[in-house]
Amino acid sequence: MADLSRLSLNTITVREQWTLAQCIEGCARHGIPGISPWRDKLAAYGLERATRHIRDAGLHVSGLCRGGMFTLPNAIEDNKRAIDEAAALGADCLVMVVGGLLPGSKDLARARGMVADGLAAVLPHARAAGVKLALEPLHPMTCADRAVLSTTAQALDLADALGDGVGVALDVYHIWWDPEIARSIARAGSRILGFHVSDWLVPTRDTALDRGMMGDGVIDIPDLRAQVEAAGYHGLIEVEIMSERDWWRRDPDEVLGVMKERFTSAV
Amino acid sequence: MADLSRLSLNTITVREQWTLAQCIEGCARHGIPGISPWRDKLAAYGLERATRHIRDAGLHVSGLCRGGMFTLPNAIEDNKRAIDEAAALGADCLVMVVGGLLPGSKDLARARGMVADGLAAVLPHARAAGVKLALEPLHPMTCADRAVLSTTAQALDLADALGDGVGVALDVYHIWWDPEIARSIARAGSRILGFHVSDWLVPTRDTALDRGMMGDGVIDIPDLRAQVEAAGYHGLIEVEIMSERDWWRRDPDEVLGVMKERFTSAV
Repeated sequence: MADLSRLSLNTITVREQWTLAQCIEGCARHGIPGISPWRDKLAAYGLERATRHIRDAGLHVSGLCRGGMFTLPNAIEDNKRAIDEAAALGADCLVMVVGGLLPGSKDLARARGMVADGLAAVLPHARAAGVKLALEPLHPMTCADRAVLSTTAQALDLADALGDGVGVALDVYHIWWDPEIARSIARAGSRILGFHVSDWLVPTRDTALDRGMMGDGVIDIPDLRAQVEAAGYHGLIEVEIMSERDWWRRDPDEVLGVMKERFTSAV
Repeated sequence: MADLSRLSLNTITVREQWTLAQCIEGCARHGIPGISPWRDKLAAYGLERATRHIRDAGLHVSGLCRGGMFTLPNAIEDNKRAIDEAAALGADCLVMVVGGLLPGSKDLARARGMVADGLAAVLPHARAAGVKLALEPLHPMTCADRAVLSTTAQALDLADALGDGVGVALDVYHIWWDPEIARSIARAGSRILGFHVSDWLVPTRDTALDRGMMGDGVIDIPDLRAQVEAAGYHGLIEVEIMSERDWWRRDPDEVLGVMKERFTSAV
């Protein structure tokens, strides 16, 4: 099972309870070595203050959530800002949730084309800043409204086309069902820039905000972790749980405690 | 747009309002030439009475819903009965919803293996009865609890392995997001045994029972229909809508009226 030295808190796991400052202090208090902030909380705290606080707490930034959303207006400028923030934080990568269909459109091919074009447009900025872009394939149930990047194979094809500085972030919640996943993880190799865990609940009551704690669902997380490690990934493992009905309602110190226990027993 | 001569009512669309006898009469009254019954309603009506009623009404049975569920107990015997029912009805195919994970299990490979074994076990019975088995890839969000068959490519690989008498049923709701779908439809060719339509709503509020009427969502249905026809499918097109919040609450004659209108304007 996973070692706590590889644990990173994706701050959305306690989004409803804590500010970014509280997340940083919580990680320090619980001996969690990594953190992955979301940009809204980062903006609320202030980039410089947050960067200093994270550094002073001795935390490593496994990723910044998130860039992408290339099918919405002003995406290029916003992604350049996200890249600058990731650079300031020393993040391992900028996680890219690429965006869904254009508002009012049914043209999936066009959306996928805009995503490829948008990534190509911001990639020179990312390379210059030394920030790696991690394409995150999202579960197909999010295709319409969040990410037209639906499989790991599709993400790798896109990474191939874009070249240096682009890899993938693999989240067990999004990829566990994929009949091609073993092949895709092996193919990804050193391009795996992040690995995220949570669990698929049965039944699932919401397509976005009903993730489970590791061990409470049906995903064989240790098997996927073994595959990702065999492919060469040994970086931090983020716990990323959006949970309106459960974890967002609990005391955040309890959430971090359970998370640590499950990280060593179910990941 | 689609011609009404190709319309088939999947009876789940009005499951909450009508018995199978009422569905048959409704199709006759609305000039809908095809029907696809579900087995629970078929059992309630009685196979012989239903068969006679459907024949007397001049309806064509585009498919029987459903066989499969190979990861549950007694699946083989139940599938043989389903095959016999499909034969009695003269159905174009028996739609196979293959089943999810075994109860309490996280072993996706084992579930997929049981599905392949189960299909192989019932295939001789289907061939002898002259019933084609239509493997239906279901949306990945149903992988845990309904179908570990998640993509069209995976269904075709399985059909390849099984041989004669096995094809696929393609439902736009399940396949629209798939980055490989154009390639898979072309590959499927004459093995396409059924084509089902509904729409993906944004937001989607339930992973099973929140489908939309064609035209109310984001799926480019005419594009998928054109691809399926280019591959050689010119059979009936089933409208299959599970909708707890909307269509199951309406007057069923209204549902059939809207369905006919949308079939000619949005399919």
